[in-house]
Amino acid sequence: MTERTVYFVSDQTGVTVETLGHSLLTQFDGIQFNSITVPFIDNIDKAYEVSKRIDREMEHAGVRPIVFTSFVEETIREPLLKSKGLILDFFEAFLGPLESELQMHSSHTQGKAHGMVDMKTYDARIEATNFAMDADDGRSIQNYDRADVILTGVSRSGKTPTCLYLALQYGIFAANYPLTEDDLESGRLPETLLPYRKKLYGLTIAPDRLRQIRLERRPVGRYATAQQVSFELRSAERLYKKLGMFFIDTTHFSIEEIASTILNETGVERRVGP
Amino acid sequence: MTERTVYFVSDQTGVTVETLGHSLLTQFDGIQFNSITVPFIDNIDKAYEVSKRIDREMEHAGVRPIVFTSFVEETIREPLLKSKGLILDFFEAFLGPLESELQMHSSHTQGKAHGMVDMKTYDARIEATNFAMDADDGRSIQNYDRADVILTGVSRSGKTPTCLYLALQYGIFAANYPLTEDDLESGRLPETLLPYRKKLYGLTIAPDRLRQIRLERRPVGRYATAQQVSFELRSAERLYKKLGMFFIDTTHFSIEEIASTILNETGVERRVGP
Repeated sequence: MTERTVYFVSDQTGVTVETLGHSLLTQFDGIQFNSITVPFIDNIDKAYEVSKRIDREMEHAGVRPIVFTSFVEETIREPLLKSKGLILDFFEAFLGPLESELQMHSSHTQGKAHGMVDMKTYDARIEATNFAMDADDGRSIQNYDRADVILTGVSRSGKTPTCLYLALQYGIFAANYPLTEDDLESGRLPETLLPYRKKLYGLTIAPDRLRQIRLERRPVGRYATAQQVSFELRSAERLYKKLGMFFIDTTHFSIEEIASTILNETGVERRVGP
Repeated sequence: MTERTVYFVSDQTGVTVETLGHSLLTQFDGIQFNSITVPFIDNIDKAYEVSKRIDREMEHAGVRPIVFTSFVEETIREPLLKSKGLILDFFEAFLGPLESELQMHSSHTQGKAHGMVDMKTYDARIEATNFAMDADDGRSIQNYDRADVILTGVSRSGKTPTCLYLALQYGIFAANYPLTEDDLESGRLPETLLPYRKKLYGLTIAPDRLRQIRLERRPVGRYATAQQVSFELRSAERLYKKLGMFFIDTTHFSIEEIASTILNETGVERRVGP
């Protein structure tokens, strides 16, 4: 398999440029990309250092490194452009068209996207994360009036990571209520939950996949048996349908996709983000 | 203030295109951007619907909507290109140069970036999230040999959200150990922590900011007093220095920046991601 070295260079954390670069590179099969993230390159001296590092890699590998960059300050980008790497800069590609459309110059201010933290955004994410932690695993039902959405499902169907992702990414208040044996057997939710019926969103998952996840967590007892898993999932799905709830089969989805689908279907408004 | 409507349209979750668009739009001050994310546009009929929606918005607002898109399939992009919006397509801009550099065609496979989930990646993120939940707030010290990094700091210095972000974004096993009154007064860490000294990373924060955060959480008692907060922070920083630990002042940083700095300084390898 061919190998290529890829650099993600940014004057900030590099998270944005990694996300973008990664989604492009997944379009190329059969190449092993070795990724190196170089964050916080916020002055010209550091940029020259990275440029030299790229040139050394070029000599070593005999093939051009691919370099994804996002520099707000054009002057910091200069040394990179002089390097032997293929420079793909995200700001350069789109700021021009945006400037003409908006008929103004961009502020070219370093650190705007993540940095120089917008305290309100930070607080909203932290508050949402605290909420998700406090309302994990069926705790804090008394706080459900503050919830934007309440994820429900059987044990290990993906509720907790999805709630945390919704909190960290979007500042959304997401609680999670695990369906109990009682709920599943009676086909009813507890009285205390009924006022929040419209906030409920169900998760389900393929039985084989759930068994596999549960076996890793707790291999003994009834918990991971085929019979138990299939009883729980069947009962959960029946309950969702009876209550007319939205629900998603998480088996083939990433956490991002589950979260996006929930927002898309419920219309819950994100509290932070674009 | 001028207003502009911005669409983020994707055949996937829209997370990538939102990230890109957001980091660009923050470069333009004085404009109120109203953002609309339209995910999962994965066939041509849906694309025509969005195109019509953009045209209606154009008529309504009297000014061109800005449309960030990422379509792997070029045919799905077509209807958007015929719309009246300013289309900025992320794949179009970069796949060309990458194809010539790599001397191959991109696979143009929808859903590669996040979708058709790579189970190993999913499992790694879930496992890391479970670890962070289990090892939150000083619990599970017996599992610290499995930790990649152990964040420490006083109450409300940002440990929990940072651990969860490290887990969800990078699959990193991050534990968090809150410094106790005992630790702070004695200037020593408990015996049980000493074997893991090299994994420790300290968080600190400006006293005023910490007071503000604590006042919201628990306004009464000693917890949020100026004296207590400044005693705790001084003692914590003294302890970090004594142990020769890396530490970061989180006051002016986003969660992304704190996480990136930790990776950058410790050299801890991410388990998922680019």
